[in-house]
Amino acid sequence: MNQKLWSRRARSITPYVAGEQPRMKNLIKLNTNENPYPPSPKAIAALESYNADALRLYPNADAEPLMQAAADRHGLTPSHIFCGNGSDEVLAIAFQAFFDDTLTLPDITYSFYPVWASLYGVPLRVVPLKEDFTIPVDAFLHQKNVIFPNPNAPTGIALSRAEIESIVKTASGVVVIDEAYVEFGAESVMPLVREYDNLVVVRTLSKSHSLAGLRVGYAAAHPDLICAMRCIKDSFNSYPLDSLAQTAAAAALADSQYTDRILESIIGVREFTAGELCALGYEVLPSQSNFLFCRPPQDAAWVMGKLREQGIIVRRFGGARIENYLRITIGTRQQMETLIEVLRSLGSVSEKEDA
Amino acid sequence: MNQKLWSRRARSITPYVAGEQPRMKNLIKLNTNENPYPPSPKAIAALESYNADALRLYPNADAEPLMQAAADRHGLTPSHIFCGNGSDEVLAIAFQAFFDDTLTLPDITYSFYPVWASLYGVPLRVVPLKEDFTIPVDAFLHQKNVIFPNPNAPTGIALSRAEIESIVKTASGVVVIDEAYVEFGAESVMPLVREYDNLVVVRTLSKSHSLAGLRVGYAAAHPDLICAMRCIKDSFNSYPLDSLAQTAAAAALADSQYTDRILESIIGVREFTAGELCALGYEVLPSQSNFLFCRPPQDAAWVMGKLREQGIIVRRFGGARIENYLRITIGTRQQMETLIEVLRSLGSVSEKEDA
Repeated sequence: MNQKLWSRRARSITPYVAGEQPRMKNLIKLNTNENPYPPSPKAIAALESYNADALRLYPNADAEPLMQAAADRHGLTPSHIFCGNGSDEVLAIAFQAFFDDTLTLPDITYSFYPVWASLYGVPLRVVPLKEDFTIPVDAFLHQKNVIFPNPNAPTGIALSRAEIESIVKTASGVVVIDEAYVEFGAESVMPLVREYDNLVVVRTLSKSHSLAGLRVGYAAAHPDLICAMRCIKDSFNSYPLDSLAQTAAAAALADSQYTDRILESIIGVREFTAGELCALGYEVLPSQSNFLFCRPPQDAAWVMGKLREQGIIVRRFGGARIENYLRITIGTRQQMETLIEVLRSLGSVSEKEDA
Repeated sequence: MNQKLWSRRARSITPYVAGEQPRMKNLIKLNTNENPYPPSPKAIAALESYNADALRLYPNADAEPLMQAAADRHGLTPSHIFCGNGSDEVLAIAFQAFFDDTLTLPDITYSFYPVWASLYGVPLRVVPLKEDFTIPVDAFLHQKNVIFPNPNAPTGIALSRAEIESIVKTASGVVVIDEAYVEFGAESVMPLVREYDNLVVVRTLSKSHSLAGLRVGYAAAHPDLICAMRCIKDSFNSYPLDSLAQTAAAAALADSQYTDRILESIIGVREFTAGELCALGYEVLPSQSNFLFCRPPQDAAWVMGKLREQGIIVRRFGGARIENYLRITIGTRQQMETLIEVLRSLGSVSEKEDA
């Protein structure tokens, strides 16, 4: 690879690596935290009734109907909402809009944060998680800027609203709480958006609303912060959300009845799976997300390979403290029963250890 | 607006302003260069047959089937292609991937270029267009990095492939040619992609393929340059193109028969409109795009206001040399006949001048 015409930026960056998207059929795909249920029938109906001839026209640049749907969902106004091409784009724009000075974040967290920090030149203060993988709240008090997901990824462990409020209250800069997984049982800080002018709450429709394929996320914050994000967006890409995505996402957000039902089901299956894994000798972190972060009684890489042989894909991350853990997305009850059956068949000792 | 929590970047940038997207009915909308015809029936059929349940899964991260469709269209391989969320995102990524040092561009051109330069800290060398609004090729020879659209916007005037080749051949950095409008009659430099390792050709499906609402663009370049773009993209947003956009865009690109037919029709209507405008005393620049850049015999702002009163929206840009010009998108024959009728009714002197 000849890099002589690359910018310094392109030469120096180490890109984020997303979970693989294998195209094999009949896979049990538990590696990228997708929702096992289809999107809301109302979202699908909205797509079906969309007049495709209108695709010749530019979309609504600020995704206004979607802003309204998100505002309605959270008891806010559209001026509190910024929509983007997946929560990754929303987060990347927040990095550019708010973070000049030191950004505090956990050492074990969403691994895209350090990539954005590197791309946009943001200095980091990295705080180790406690022994039990919880976020040490004290180390996040009285900071400049802060970011972490709640629940955290890939641990699945959540902080309470009161804990996050203490961080927001004492921060001199902006606190971004990435609530990608919050609807699977954690306490949202959305009610704090009207109280604090330095809190940005980021949501995605990928997980809770089964729309990973549609790329829709949004931020809720004080209108002054939303303006900064819009300013960056309008200096980057005027129309990041296509008309179909806007249409289906607005309908999905409005259908809270369907969303609540599938969330409840996933939470039930998660608790079932956690119990079964514990019974098999797994150490399972207490998850409030749609995945379980757990340490097998055998070598994790070996278990992952064995699962793959049976067409079950899970994810493992590098790093000294977590390389022997697996992150397992919660699928349907049937998928998780198959998973448990395969895991049970592996016994309690890996061939590697046995050898 | 309280900007105390904004980054220096957000405080210093002046965002791009896109043409307005009024939501009124029965408008003749000739202000943002949309295609008056619907997208390819094959693109619409591809959307209709897409199984929306699959939206629960992440899209193909690199939009591989779309890369293949673009490669097929231009006789290239997928390793020559980078897909993005509209050509604006593709261009923004090219700025980050290639431009550290001085970038040469025309003074009158797509007004998003200086915004990206400001956002990403790229120093500019701005070259004035000649008296007749053509690009002075000599001033673009032996430069570091170069960008301009061909045909140029908002003038609509194109350079020949040989002229652009002389610029590419003598550049020490990367030359980005933005071919947003090239299919409306200009000579593409796509055949040079295999010959030069420093040429990036950018295309959009918004205009030629009637898919402005879907946000799909791509770049074609030497695989080493494509890798740099992919490196920036994977450090920003893993999945910028949703599954529906990928599906419809690939089908649209493959349907060259339909595209050729609507392009031919628009070119015919453009020539008719240019003739009528000349007959009304307009100075009309020679366009090889889907718009006409023209100077009315009356005050341009006054003409624009009068058109608006009749439900016809056109665009006017600021700047000493062009503020008395209008940019008029080519609509259907019937729309342009209505436009000409209204313009004729205005006479040859504006009330303002008359008073």
